[in-house]
Amino acid sequence: MSALPRALQDLIDELGKLPGVGPRTAERYAYSLLKRSPDVSSSIADSLQKLHKNVKYCPTTFALIEIDQEESPLYTNPDRNKQIVAVVEEPLDVVSIEKTGQYKGTYHVLGGTLSPIDGIGPEQIRVAELVKRIKKDKVEEVILATNASVEGESTALFVQKHIEKDGLIISRLARGLPVGVDLEYADQITIGRALEGRQLL
Amino acid sequence: MSALPRALQDLIDELGKLPGVGPRTAERYAYSLLKRSPDVSSSIADSLQKLHKNVKYCPTTFALIEIDQEESPLYTNPDRNKQIVAVVEEPLDVVSIEKTGQYKGTYHVLGGTLSPIDGIGPEQIRVAELVKRIKKDKVEEVILATNASVEGESTALFVQKHIEKDGLIISRLARGLPVGVDLEYADQITIGRALEGRQLL
Repeated sequence: MSALPRALQDLIDELGKLPGVGPRTAERYAYSLLKRSPDVSSSIADSLQKLHKNVKYCPTTFALIEIDQEESPLYTNPDRNKQIVAVVEEPLDVVSIEKTGQYKGTYHVLGGTLSPIDGIGPEQIRVAELVKRIKKDKVEEVILATNASVEGESTALFVQKHIEKDGLIISRLARGLPVGVDLEYADQITIGRALEGRQLL
Repeated sequence: MSALPRALQDLIDELGKLPGVGPRTAERYAYSLLKRSPDVSSSIADSLQKLHKNVKYCPTTFALIEIDQEESPLYTNPDRNKQIVAVVEEPLDVVSIEKTGQYKGTYHVLGGTLSPIDGIGPEQIRVAELVKRIKKDKVEEVILATNASVEGESTALFVQKHIEKDGLIISRLARGLPVGVDLEYADQITIGRALEGRQLL
């Protein structure tokens, strides 16, 4: 016999499905919800029910869009320059770049990184779709904006090899010191990259 | 304009209501749910909807019980010794003690610790109810099983003062080295407590 009511134990088990949430954290989440108004649980439940019904992938950029949209507004908006494409790993990366307010090109979401161990090969990461789009939209510059991780770097290299052609500019995000960080706290590799990419004044 | 579909942004905002979950963690949770089957989100939503409808507090022990139960089975079960009462802070503490399989007494859940700053005074922590129960059930021993924190200790002291009477044994959980911990990694206060409470062999 569990010392907890069934409904609470069920919720603990369910919340344990969230990434990185163990039994202790799930207990804390569930108990905090129990102590608060039922409205809080209800409104979280509502959002969960609506998630898949209202979100889909843009067939061109593979960004996330509303269910009633045909393509991502970040692609169809005439203010966006279709000749520049930023290639990112995941849909949430689009949000990170948009937050800078500095980018006026469009996006292409790979949907992951190459990972032979996990069975994620070239077909899964939508490189063919990118090649097609470069041709169709007469793309002039592709910015490889994958993560600065080993997987991100090797995926960027793979994409680069597949899209290289005369006249196409391929760039990647600069490596260097994150803004606001003291030199003494930065790791050696980051400092090494910052040296390599030093800018003339 | 948000770069994310409304339903996804809503879910991120909703998950941000969980304790200790900031926007980044909420994004990670929401996106991981989006990538999985809608059934996963649905079943979490179901559990959330059922939580408050199926759980209530036991009017005697203040432990959590099923909505159709009158009192906690950990109280009504004839195998449990009503003359021994473990006083804990929160309902989940009952689970922790039950997991040991070593305790056959009953529980009294205070529902928090004394915290004048948060407006939690003696009336909020159900001490009067404990006093009544000690009389009614002819309780012989009260085990103060509050947390080993400053708040837990001061609450235990407060409870102790209110229940003290001739013939009532009042004990508290032993302080000492956690099992499996090397002496060199234990903090000074814990080692101090372990010395004070040293056991004769």
